[in-house]
Amino acid sequence: MQTTPLFSVIGYNLQQKLICLTKPLREEAIKSLYCGTLPRRLAMADLGCSSGQHALIVVSDFIKTVEKLCLELNHKSPEYKVFFNDLPGNDFNNIFKSLDSFKQKLCEEMESGIGPCYFFGAPGSFYGRIFSNQSVHFIHSSYSLQWLSKVPECIDNNKSNIYLGRTSPSNVVRAYYEQYQRDFSLFLKCRAEELVEGGRMILTIMGRRSDDPSSKDGCYIWEIMATALNDMVLQGIIKEEQLDTFNIPFYTPSPSEVKLEVLKEGSFAINCLEVSVVHWSAWDEWSVLDFESESGYNLTQSMRAVAESMLVSHFGEAIIDELFSRYQEILADRMSKEKTKFINVTILLTRKP
Amino acid sequence: MQTTPLFSVIGYNLQQKLICLTKPLREEAIKSLYCGTLPRRLAMADLGCSSGQHALIVVSDFIKTVEKLCLELNHKSPEYKVFFNDLPGNDFNNIFKSLDSFKQKLCEEMESGIGPCYFFGAPGSFYGRIFSNQSVHFIHSSYSLQWLSKVPECIDNNKSNIYLGRTSPSNVVRAYYEQYQRDFSLFLKCRAEELVEGGRMILTIMGRRSDDPSSKDGCYIWEIMATALNDMVLQGIIKEEQLDTFNIPFYTPSPSEVKLEVLKEGSFAINCLEVSVVHWSAWDEWSVLDFESESGYNLTQSMRAVAESMLVSHFGEAIIDELFSRYQEILADRMSKEKTKFINVTILLTRKP
Repeated sequence: MQTTPLFSVIGYNLQQKLICLTKPLREEAIKSLYCGTLPRRLAMADLGCSSGQHALIVVSDFIKTVEKLCLELNHKSPEYKVFFNDLPGNDFNNIFKSLDSFKQKLCEEMESGIGPCYFFGAPGSFYGRIFSNQSVHFIHSSYSLQWLSKVPECIDNNKSNIYLGRTSPSNVVRAYYEQYQRDFSLFLKCRAEELVEGGRMILTIMGRRSDDPSSKDGCYIWEIMATALNDMVLQGIIKEEQLDTFNIPFYTPSPSEVKLEVLKEGSFAINCLEVSVVHWSAWDEWSVLDFESESGYNLTQSMRAVAESMLVSHFGEAIIDELFSRYQEILADRMSKEKTKFINVTILLTRKP
Repeated sequence: MQTTPLFSVIGYNLQQKLICLTKPLREEAIKSLYCGTLPRRLAMADLGCSSGQHALIVVSDFIKTVEKLCLELNHKSPEYKVFFNDLPGNDFNNIFKSLDSFKQKLCEEMESGIGPCYFFGAPGSFYGRIFSNQSVHFIHSSYSLQWLSKVPECIDNNKSNIYLGRTSPSNVVRAYYEQYQRDFSLFLKCRAEELVEGGRMILTIMGRRSDDPSSKDGCYIWEIMATALNDMVLQGIIKEEQLDTFNIPFYTPSPSEVKLEVLKEGSFAINCLEVSVVHWSAWDEWSVLDFESESGYNLTQSMRAVAESMLVSHFGEAIIDELFSRYQEILADRMSKEKTKFINVTILLTRKP
């Protein structure tokens, strides 16, 4: 059973699109944060930063927004502390190596100069404390919180499914939901302790619109993976018991499920709760790989980046190429017949006094 | 010309020995720091942490000393923030992966429990700012500050030397000393801004006892390297021009040179200035490698770990095995004839109010 949560990004292009989508909301949050507190120091954190590529865009937006405000208000620039968080197994070295050129580019773009910036890696699961009490002003996390801390317990009867699906028994649906509740409420509790009063947190989570956790809009990409795996069981490439014991630590919450946990935890005011949609075909539209234009190729590559290590540790290396080749084939077929999409839940929160 | 400073550790065993040597001094510093300020939060940093192996011993000692004080004084444990610093090219991933087991071991050893600990990577040169203003209480650095930020300029006439040596012209000696002065005073200025008032800093630097910067006790390990390189020039394996343009960014200061910069900078009170000696043969005595007991083997391996990347980028990969084989041969010969040793300068400073 897979117990290590993965915080990796699903898809370079989707992340880029999401970062663009949330930019106005982030700007608004930073403006009201800054004007409400006029801090001399500002600490921001990206949780589940993965390669850091998108986290750096968020950091750049953050600093630019504050610096523009400082110019308008004729204030001295604050000091910035920037924290990159992910699991200890993440490649932080690569992020660190890119920081000098990032800082240089940022300084060139901001002719009037910027306040001193200090960058840190903060390794650890965000389902636990990462920062000291009331030490962070702004927290951002994009496409990481759909990963649970572990696979729910007692879901042996999920059989041919690898996540929730139409045929998942009700105890499995309940177990997944309860694991999500435990994880997300712990996440909120930890962040409430770490954020200063008035601090802002913006989270984008892969989610669903339906009230039913096993509805298609939250489960479809994993259902396609399950289809490919089941085909390989039928052909004797994978053993049935192997598939029966494989489930992923994932949960795509509905907006109301997200809202409920926030209200129950009680430390945050909800400033905004939005749902956005990105079509799967966006991968192909956004492709920068001219040499590869097969339908579903990019999405398959993204899914492979996310799921490969989990699949390898359960099924072994040997089946992987075959599995993703089948995955892409099924994906292309579905995409040609229906308008498949990802649902994203974005929530902006303020730490109550 | 080599312009990237290396902060790597010279020798696993030497570092271990130095950490033992400075333990009483560190304990004393931590006690007076804690009792003088009774902080609710304590931030400590290891500068030039390299693999983190020795930094973790220092971190463990730090936390244990504070926790014992808390028990004695019946105080609540503080929150700990621990920063690992080195250049952005350092392998931070490996340090981060070891933190969970480190924390677990520490908790097991301290039955009465410890305060919450938060660990961070802080990539960047310590010849510049790393932390925000007055945010650190205790700074430790061992065997890193003998590395300069760059090779001094205008030392073209250092010819067959690769560092200071008996035949180094006076302008070269002056250029090395001035580069050391610029670097170390900048280091002190940055740390003075980062440390809280009353904050402590303990530095161990590879140094020398003599007043003469080109005296044997500070230059000998590099002189042996130069001897090996010159032999290879004579045999046509390395071009003379190549050797003439190779110099290392290094300086082994005397205690009085260290003291002078501290007094000139002015932000620190000197609590202690010590000189210690470690014999080269300590490498062999401390060896854990039963299968390898040739004289000079361990020291050669240590020097290779430190100097290989510098040598490769200047002379190319091809000569390296041959160079270190010759290096070990010369080393073994010298060690059999004389009592060769490293001189270490340790200084304990308090940030003045």
